[in-house]
Amino acid sequence: MSNNILNLLNQHRSIRQFTDQPLTDEEVTTLVTAAQHAATSTFAQQYSIISITDPAIKQELGDITGHHWLEKSGHYFMLVADQHRNLKIAEATHADTTILRSFDKFLASTFDVAIAAEAIVTAGESMGLGSTIMGSILNHSQRVITLLNLPELTFPLLGIAIGHPAEQPGLKPRLPQPLMHFSNQYALPDDFDSQLASYDTTTADYYAHRNSHLKNTTFSQHIVQELQRDPKLRAELLQVIKQQGFNIDL
Amino acid sequence: MSNNILNLLNQHRSIRQFTDQPLTDEEVTTLVTAAQHAATSTFAQQYSIISITDPAIKQELGDITGHHWLEKSGHYFMLVADQHRNLKIAEATHADTTILRSFDKFLASTFDVAIAAEAIVTAGESMGLGSTIMGSILNHSQRVITLLNLPELTFPLLGIAIGHPAEQPGLKPRLPQPLMHFSNQYALPDDFDSQLASYDTTTADYYAHRNSHLKNTTFSQHIVQELQRDPKLRAELLQVIKQQGFNIDL
Repeated sequence: MSNNILNLLNQHRSIRQFTDQPLTDEEVTTLVTAAQHAATSTFAQQYSIISITDPAIKQELGDITGHHWLEKSGHYFMLVADQHRNLKIAEATHADTTILRSFDKFLASTFDVAIAAEAIVTAGESMGLGSTIMGSILNHSQRVITLLNLPELTFPLLGIAIGHPAEQPGLKPRLPQPLMHFSNQYALPDDFDSQLASYDTTTADYYAHRNSHLKNTTFSQHIVQELQRDPKLRAELLQVIKQQGFNIDL
Repeated sequence: MSNNILNLLNQHRSIRQFTDQPLTDEEVTTLVTAAQHAATSTFAQQYSIISITDPAIKQELGDITGHHWLEKSGHYFMLVADQHRNLKIAEATHADTTILRSFDKFLASTFDVAIAAEAIVTAGESMGLGSTIMGSILNHSQRVITLLNLPELTFPLLGIAIGHPAEQPGLKPRLPQPLMHFSNQYALPDDFDSQLASYDTTTADYYAHRNSHLKNTTFSQHIVQELQRDPKLRAELLQVIKQQGFNIDL
């Protein structure tokens, strides 16, 4: 089964090197429009997008994420969980706004943000742009909040570096479907170990031969390496979410 | 700016009425493949997909969500936050798995799930299918967990009802961009009230004239109505996430 949209989706790569060409205002508006037309939980449109074009802010985001390459992107989007706008709407009617502060609503905003991010990535790729969705802005959430002047009931969840690609990375092989797609029940297959071993061989081959950043690793080793990061990184995450007004203990 | 992928994204509607035609196995595999090729946080592939075809399970999901129309969909996907598979991989090496239980990793799984959901919706629409992403499976998380036999470090986040459309709803108007897209700082515009009033008029017109489910409401009224739902609904959400092994207090 094939069409040009499936082909585009199945050729997705994250792009981290960009030409100097910035996005035009029309391109930026087109991407935001595509994001807006994606699904949003209970049609509450509970996220906002901040376009970061100020080089000083981009530099600080480079520091926060540890990924200074983002500063060379053609455009940077910050996607923000946003119950603040709906709070303003509800307060005008003196409604009880307890639910806007709930973990459930934080989660709904998280869905909205990630769905919008994927729409931006797909729309961008259809326009010849490449991008990387960046969760690393969570490394120091409070710094991002201060930097972008984020009010009560907002929270920065994902960044997107986007621009004209200056690299063409290989396609990273994905897990065999029997390891992640089940029928009616959660059930890893009986031959999990051998299917994983086979996938580890495939990923080792990919990492050893790709265009750049060659390394000697497998998917399993990659997962284990991830666990060795400093546990203090993002230790403030829940505290900062609470400080923004979400009742995460409810 | 226009191409057939942007056109598809900008024409998105949620579809809740389906013909009797089930999806073929090939269509299901194609959709899962598109989901897999979307971005995943730190390439940890920390989600799983469960295809629900058992009518008894579909019926219980109809009860849980209150949306019995899902039982008539051509296929139903349950998207599950999944650190369980990576736990199994890490435990084989006796690695410290603390980070897999962190809120940060729960959030990463949430991103993975929502991004995959949007990829499935877009891929499906390119194949002539319609769908609705359903957060209403969160109404009774523990029942979903029991129903699908979900192990430690998994959590059901989003359902997707998908099939051949038997309705053609109108395109719901989105917020004016100045109310949700800002430059370098979070800043609602000075004319927020008048822009919102104008959007309320637009949405009132949409709700009063759309193909079905006509109602007399505005976006602002819709937001306020949402807040009146029973606060006990989903009150168990955080507790169930903890019971699944996530250290949400960390």
